[in-house]
Amino acid sequence: MSSSSRPWVKITGFIAFILVVIAASSPFIKHVKTSFIPSHTSDANAYKAPKNNVWSDLSKWEANSVANFLLSSSGLNLTDSAKATSDDNAIKLIELLQPNKSDVLSYLDGSSGPPARWARVVVEQGATKEAHVTNYMVGPLPLDESSVVMPLEFCYSSGRNYALNPMADQAKLLSFAKSFAVGIMDILAEILSDDQHPFDMKGLGVHPRVNYIVDETLMIWMQLYRTGFNSDATSLLPQGIYIQLNASTRNPENWKVLQWYFNNKIYANETEFRVAMESPDFKKSGLNMDGHWNDIEDFDSAPPGREMPSPTMVQPNGARYRIDKEQNFVSWMGFDFYMSTSSDTGLFLHDIRFNGDSVMYEVGMQEALAHYAGDDPMQGGQEFLDSFLYMGLYMYELVPGYDCPAYATFLDTEFHFKDFPKTNKNSICIFEYTADYPLQRHTADKRVSISRNTYLVVRFVSTVWNYDYTFDYIFYLDGTIEVKVRASGFIFGAFWTGGQANEDEYGFRVHDAVSTSMHDHVINFKADLDIVGTENTMVRVGVEPLTAEYPWDDENTSPRNTMHLTKTIVEKEMGIDWPRNSGELFIVMNQNETNKWGQKRGYRVMPGTGVGTPVHLTILNSTTLGKAAEWAANDLWALKRKDTEPRSSSPLNALTPLDPIVDFGKYVDDEDIMQEDLVIWFNLGTHHIPHAGDIPNTLMHTSSSSVMFTPFNFHDRDPSIHTRQGVKMETGKKVRHFGGSYDAGVRLRKEDLEPDLSRYQVPVDAGTNHSFVDKLGGPAPWN
Amino acid sequence: MSSSSRPWVKITGFIAFILVVIAASSPFIKHVKTSFIPSHTSDANAYKAPKNNVWSDLSKWEANSVANFLLSSSGLNLTDSAKATSDDNAIKLIELLQPNKSDVLSYLDGSSGPPARWARVVVEQGATKEAHVTNYMVGPLPLDESSVVMPLEFCYSSGRNYALNPMADQAKLLSFAKSFAVGIMDILAEILSDDQHPFDMKGLGVHPRVNYIVDETLMIWMQLYRTGFNSDATSLLPQGIYIQLNASTRNPENWKVLQWYFNNKIYANETEFRVAMESPDFKKSGLNMDGHWNDIEDFDSAPPGREMPSPTMVQPNGARYRIDKEQNFVSWMGFDFYMSTSSDTGLFLHDIRFNGDSVMYEVGMQEALAHYAGDDPMQGGQEFLDSFLYMGLYMYELVPGYDCPAYATFLDTEFHFKDFPKTNKNSICIFEYTADYPLQRHTADKRVSISRNTYLVVRFVSTVWNYDYTFDYIFYLDGTIEVKVRASGFIFGAFWTGGQANEDEYGFRVHDAVSTSMHDHVINFKADLDIVGTENTMVRVGVEPLTAEYPWDDENTSPRNTMHLTKTIVEKEMGIDWPRNSGELFIVMNQNETNKWGQKRGYRVMPGTGVGTPVHLTILNSTTLGKAAEWAANDLWALKRKDTEPRSSSPLNALTPLDPIVDFGKYVDDEDIMQEDLVIWFNLGTHHIPHAGDIPNTLMHTSSSSVMFTPFNFHDRDPSIHTRQGVKMETGKKVRHFGGSYDAGVRLRKEDLEPDLSRYQVPVDAGTNHSFVDKLGGPAPWN
Repeated sequence: MSSSSRPWVKITGFIAFILVVIAASSPFIKHVKTSFIPSHTSDANAYKAPKNNVWSDLSKWEANSVANFLLSSSGLNLTDSAKATSDDNAIKLIELLQPNKSDVLSYLDGSSGPPARWARVVVEQGATKEAHVTNYMVGPLPLDESSVVMPLEFCYSSGRNYALNPMADQAKLLSFAKSFAVGIMDILAEILSDDQHPFDMKGLGVHPRVNYIVDETLMIWMQLYRTGFNSDATSLLPQGIYIQLNASTRNPENWKVLQWYFNNKIYANETEFRVAMESPDFKKSGLNMDGHWNDIEDFDSAPPGREMPSPTMVQPNGARYRIDKEQNFVSWMGFDFYMSTSSDTGLFLHDIRFNGDSVMYEVGMQEALAHYAGDDPMQGGQEFLDSFLYMGLYMYELVPGYDCPAYATFLDTEFHFKDFPKTNKNSICIFEYTADYPLQRHTADKRVSISRNTYLVVRFVSTVWNYDYTFDYIFYLDGTIEVKVRASGFIFGAFWTGGQANEDEYGFRVHDAVSTSMHDHVINFKADLDIVGTENTMVRVGVEPLTAEYPWDDENTSPRNTMHLTKTIVEKEMGIDWPRNSGELFIVMNQNETNKWGQKRGYRVMPGTGVGTPVHLTILNSTTLGKAAEWAANDLWALKRKDTEPRSSSPLNALTPLDPIVDFGKYVDDEDIMQEDLVIWFNLGTHHIPHAGDIPNTLMHTSSSSVMFTPFNFHDRDPSIHTRQGVKMETGKKVRHFGGSYDAGVRLRKEDLEPDLSRYQVPVDAGTNHSFVDKLGGPAPWN
Repeated sequence: MSSSSRPWVKITGFIAFILVVIAASSPFIKHVKTSFIPSHTSDANAYKAPKNNVWSDLSKWEANSVANFLLSSSGLNLTDSAKATSDDNAIKLIELLQPNKSDVLSYLDGSSGPPARWARVVVEQGATKEAHVTNYMVGPLPLDESSVVMPLEFCYSSGRNYALNPMADQAKLLSFAKSFAVGIMDILAEILSDDQHPFDMKGLGVHPRVNYIVDETLMIWMQLYRTGFNSDATSLLPQGIYIQLNASTRNPENWKVLQWYFNNKIYANETEFRVAMESPDFKKSGLNMDGHWNDIEDFDSAPPGREMPSPTMVQPNGARYRIDKEQNFVSWMGFDFYMSTSSDTGLFLHDIRFNGDSVMYEVGMQEALAHYAGDDPMQGGQEFLDSFLYMGLYMYELVPGYDCPAYATFLDTEFHFKDFPKTNKNSICIFEYTADYPLQRHTADKRVSISRNTYLVVRFVSTVWNYDYTFDYIFYLDGTIEVKVRASGFIFGAFWTGGQANEDEYGFRVHDAVSTSMHDHVINFKADLDIVGTENTMVRVGVEPLTAEYPWDDENTSPRNTMHLTKTIVEKEMGIDWPRNSGELFIVMNQNETNKWGQKRGYRVMPGTGVGTPVHLTILNSTTLGKAAEWAANDLWALKRKDTEPRSSSPLNALTPLDPIVDFGKYVDDEDIMQEDLVIWFNLGTHHIPHAGDIPNTLMHTSSSSVMFTPFNFHDRDPSIHTRQGVKMETGKKVRHFGGSYDAGVRLRKEDLEPDLSRYQVPVDAGTNHSFVDKLGGPAPWN
């Protein structure tokens, strides 16, 4: 790569732009109501957070003041975004620059006032020879004569506040592609049709992928689509023709169409392709047309029972959590936390406490990578870094009774794109749910005790073009916090040419000429753990085989093959993978805080209730991805927290992956991390190898991925005993409930709550007449 | 080990006997009713299975006829079990000898009548010099002059129909231990008391563990307990004194007390211990007394919301599955299966079909291993093979509304121990549940579609002394079958002496003198997969990094670092572990059956929604376990199914682990398994490293373990579209439901189902003014 004055670097993620436009081009389902039950949460409105939410995004007023200030007096040569073209500079986004943790902690502990508020402003800078996307910080707010505009650099490992924007001139590219397609209409009519599907220029589409940008050369591969105008399944409708474009410089007059790729063959240019078409052995490939095969809904099938309502969760007497909607503060069964949203990454939780003790300062999604592979020019080099697409913005409205229970609390989110605020209605839901299994049970000699597993979910969904990510933060009564992602929506299909020896090397045929395309989802999160304070240590507890001699063994059993625990303190910053056979526990402890039994208080980090164990990226040193997502190379990372390393990625990483504005790899720099302020950066995700069952949509029960943070000697015993609901039944005594029960609220038919003792069964002696066990001195109870 | 005429072999699992007796010694909570909603399943009673359930256990009449036959005329020298002592031979158990698969398949396909029914009879044989437990087969049933009694040998890899029973003389051992304890009462009074807890012989207990049996020598370690008479938490109340016993031969006059172990020190005998006690530097260890600290219930705490009913699942209009209770046959949304129960291992499912295609011939738990480790004589050599304790028998009554929804269908199970039948009321539950997240969702340009994830659960709980296992078979609408185990109950604690450098080497202190004790749960299951017939092949699909050159790349991106799929057919029987980074898919395919797209139809075997990935045993060649559980060494095994290898273990394996009646290792004998009848033997389980949060009970949300069998190119597309319920909302159109909705049944307040179009939000253009995408020839929709 050159270091010329115009530092074109290789980029990818070009198709990302398409996704944005598809999404932005139509009216959306944004607010729909279905059957509700009353929310019962009116009394919760009176609930007040202990502090102001210092992470909350800018108010409309704050954002407007920043926009007006910048447009009028910043010297940034800005054009009103409503009038701006790609040759102007314009505001793209205004949102809160998250305050530094050091400033927030002193506010939370009462030793200082709230931290100063600053705005982060993203500017699309097209008025210069080289187009950039540039970050500024503006503040403090409210604006006054002391307020300034500064390049925002401290939080980007590159030291730059900008990235090259090779995609600034999309209008020109669009126009170029359109003229080209019209010019080869005869070819398209021949190869993109069959008897049932005569050619039609209408509804033809093209998806581009940047293959590389090196020096000043921008190379793009484009694939054609015949999606029609009304298909939701665009990503399932690739056609088999790919065309290479050299789109170097910002002047379309320099652009050239180069090679063609069709039916597994390369053609040097249009002429060569035309010659091949005349050849008698020219073979067409298949066609993919929209149709009922990709319909999500079947309204007609009527297997037994489908017509009956399925079981449904109800919340008889209202919510048991309390929310301060003003401050986005939630309190439930010992848990307290604040919420904020970010336009690129969605929901964050802050200052999570359990029974008053700090657990996490912050947790939130950082970046969602989907990396494809294949032997065609599209899938073969495709990856998406979805925060570039503003996953926060695509937090669409949740459908009550389907995305979340109808009784959930739904919250709006607000963003400030361009110069105006935008509200996503009902885009976060909060609800309690009761699992199908208990949290605890035990049948003892004369008693049985069972406790319900009711948990709290905070959920949002981000739909990025074809794919729907559902993000959950789940809180359990024992202090466990789970972070979970589920995927649904349409897969991004590859064109299937067939007939190759290796035709299953990257996926499986699922339609006429559609193959699934293998891809890795790796979704990075930041968990800034503060286990009873900020000074924490990560300890690896190994579960290992052992051969040992014990004094109580003799020659017949010694040495003995057994196992034991080993303890290794993570002394330096490092990346770690989930161990083979789950043979290690990763525990973040505060070495200076012990429970009643002298054990260091900690939280264990472990794979949760997703399917299996979350994955890291299969590909080693991906050619496409460059250094844009070094966090994807391991499952989790234990690093020292710094104000200068607030996030593992940037939306702008997708633009210049070989030289990204944030290089996570630079965060891992061998620092000591014993009793330091630790961040666990961890990945969720799956190797998605779709098959016929992914058509029409990927199913969420098998696409989930999760990590749990669960107390480990954090308390003196299980704290859920104080909050859980359950029942104790005892021989000869009345049934006793602990916590609330169903005496009111749902109109279930109740039987007498007295156990029917006459129906007790005395079990048989299971085959032994006698026993070693004796309650010595007393009557043997079985006599 | 000698090959003497009295082949004493080393055994373990002695404490198992205690568990049985504790369980059998008291009246149990066996049937309790709580608030029910009407079951609505009355019409389901008319539902009939297509075939008779040939796996169903013997009827009372069949079992009685076998018992009478054996007692009257078998020549087995049997004594009526009501009168038998340990010096007699007596019937222990009568149950169905499961028919051979070959005979069943011809019955199911209509080419033959039902297979002959045979009984399996277990005899405790004490009237011989050496005590045995012996298996016989009796049949065919109903008994007539052609019926015979034969040693049951063909299904045991050892070729034997019996195992040595060193535990036959428990009454004598009990009596011996009691006299000994009385003789050292002064010592016990000194070391098992403190100021708050004066000594009391009442409620003293002793737990023994066989350290080894070699030649004719039986060595036992015993640990004392002060549990009192009313504690449910016996397993949390160990005391710090351990005493070694030589209990060789069946004559107690030969038995001797040997070494003592106290406070990490060995004493050669009682005298040496008494001398040490007189020494001024003799140090007592702590005491563990019963108390509120191990109470499961807290009736008094009242954090906000605890008093309110939590959300609860209701089933508005009754069950959507159909059950033939006569044949234990269930049908739900395309799934059909039969059920049976076994006294040692609980519930089995048979002939599982999905939309008529065979998927599994049989699935069921085989054995549950819990292997402990520690540096004291009890935990250091402890393991349990719980089927020895009759986990089927300990399927206690499920509590409606807590173990299962109140609306579940509850079924009874029946066993034939000794000479009489035993019914466990309501010990299996079946219910539908709706997950807190949808099965599928997608927000498209102008539409949103969301489908509910309603699944079917078949559940039983087996409580083995301190520990409660909840077993689930879960069916999903797409054809996925999940097998899940969750654990709760009291942990088995170790005595904590403290003050050692390595005091956390096997667990963590959680009470005055209680340490948790690390243990591996490894629970083996048999899944006899029949993917569209019995001829199946296991294929390993690797997800692997790749560096490759593609014709469409040039020197700037070639060779390219990417990834691809590899395919390896499992040609020979083998054990396999879940791969690092989930980098392999294990798919059982029928190579001769393809879907519409030419893909081989298969089911993928993968870790499910338990916490993380199920484990195998940490210990290599466990000294304690011998060869009793070779299946625990790997995560799963692909083996050829044989009538002679019906189960991976036997309850009798616990008696002679070095030379078990079934050695699973012998099943793995290098046979070809391509397009053969395959069994996947797989393990669930966890490394359980309990901590303070396990007191009083282990919690089930973090103790779950699961494997899923999920269709992989089994259908032409996702079949759940035909059964799922959901909603489609579209701009400008009425909301349409597919499948049933909540119009009736639950009295939820309904709003108008017409979407409120006026509230639709049009999202902003997320920062790009133009696009490459064009619907060529038509108006660009964003213009």
